[in-house]
Amino acid sequence: MNKIITIGREFGSGGREFGRRLSEALGIAYYDQEIVSEIAKRTSLSEQYIQSISEHQNAFSFPIHVGRSFAPTLNPLLEQSLAVYQEQAEILQEMAEKSDCVIVGRCADYVLKDYHPLRIFVYADLAHKLRRCREKAPEGESLSDRELKQKMNSIDKKRARYYEFYTGHSWGDKLNFDICLNTTNLVIRDIVPAFAKLLG
Amino acid sequence: MNKIITIGREFGSGGREFGRRLSEALGIAYYDQEIVSEIAKRTSLSEQYIQSISEHQNAFSFPIHVGRSFAPTLNPLLEQSLAVYQEQAEILQEMAEKSDCVIVGRCADYVLKDYHPLRIFVYADLAHKLRRCREKAPEGESLSDRELKQKMNSIDKKRARYYEFYTGHSWGDKLNFDICLNTTNLVIRDIVPAFAKLLG
Repeated sequence: MNKIITIGREFGSGGREFGRRLSEALGIAYYDQEIVSEIAKRTSLSEQYIQSISEHQNAFSFPIHVGRSFAPTLNPLLEQSLAVYQEQAEILQEMAEKSDCVIVGRCADYVLKDYHPLRIFVYADLAHKLRRCREKAPEGESLSDRELKQKMNSIDKKRARYYEFYTGHSWGDKLNFDICLNTTNLVIRDIVPAFAKLLG
Repeated sequence: MNKIITIGREFGSGGREFGRRLSEALGIAYYDQEIVSEIAKRTSLSEQYIQSISEHQNAFSFPIHVGRSFAPTLNPLLEQSLAVYQEQAEILQEMAEKSDCVIVGRCADYVLKDYHPLRIFVYADLAHKLRRCREKAPEGESLSDRELKQKMNSIDKKRARYYEFYTGHSWGDKLNFDICLNTTNLVIRDIVPAFAKLLG
């Protein structure tokens, strides 16, 4: 069975950088944007739209019974989300079959549970995440601390709703991960080689 | 500054074994029973008694205001617990000053925060902890699954109360640790060498 490493992460914690660097250090595949592109190819939806209804979307912000019990059909946004999730799950399984890989987000720890992935969750304290977001901000973005905090909270809330909707598990609960890594006091670049040895 | 590694752990997760093996792999001191012996020497209390009023005791099972606000003096058990905690904190600091070391439990992550310890929390799922407790049980102990679960819960509840009382933090909250390690799918002996490289 291939070695599958899944990375859950809080926004601003550096989970994506950790995943990418880890895949490079291990010399294995890293899947991120490729998944969106592949869904787009198979569903004829635009990458932008898929991005918007995947982890960062609002389909899960209403009580599910509104769609399930009282309305004759599902909310169309939810219906499309379910279809994209299904497609994404199939793509993740194909990737897991193909070779060793690192996959960030997308409930991969849950979707690929039969492949016994090494499940990592990356997090950090608020001050560190704010600092990191400032450093990585797109040029021209000038949010106040309050606005940035709101943005971070909003993204993590959506991730949590998405994860909990599809997996039935609580997002970020350490019991769903093998290793939880707090990047507050770490330089990701520096710790990756040792982690690669640990996981290699 | 010396390298200090503190290990918090759920009962039955193998945190103590992990700490001991890690100290051996790193060739650094491991403090556990030595702390109790040292407190006993300094306070003239028996090691057994110190053990009973440290993490595994009941002084924190009543609301603190009973002691603080209404009674003219503290509950005697609580008073002794505070004295032992104070003594223990001093000993931990002396140990941290002396050399690199691994310390299991005893709120060491909090007491030694000025030494910037690498704070690890070891945990596992219930089935794994039950299995491990059975394997490590003293000869002649024959608890039912239900009794063993009750024992585990009771010990962890006392650890949580103790930790929360002295630190004001929630016990096992991943934000208070640098790495959380789930031993459910791991053989501790096998992962320690790689962890020693990570932390060495």
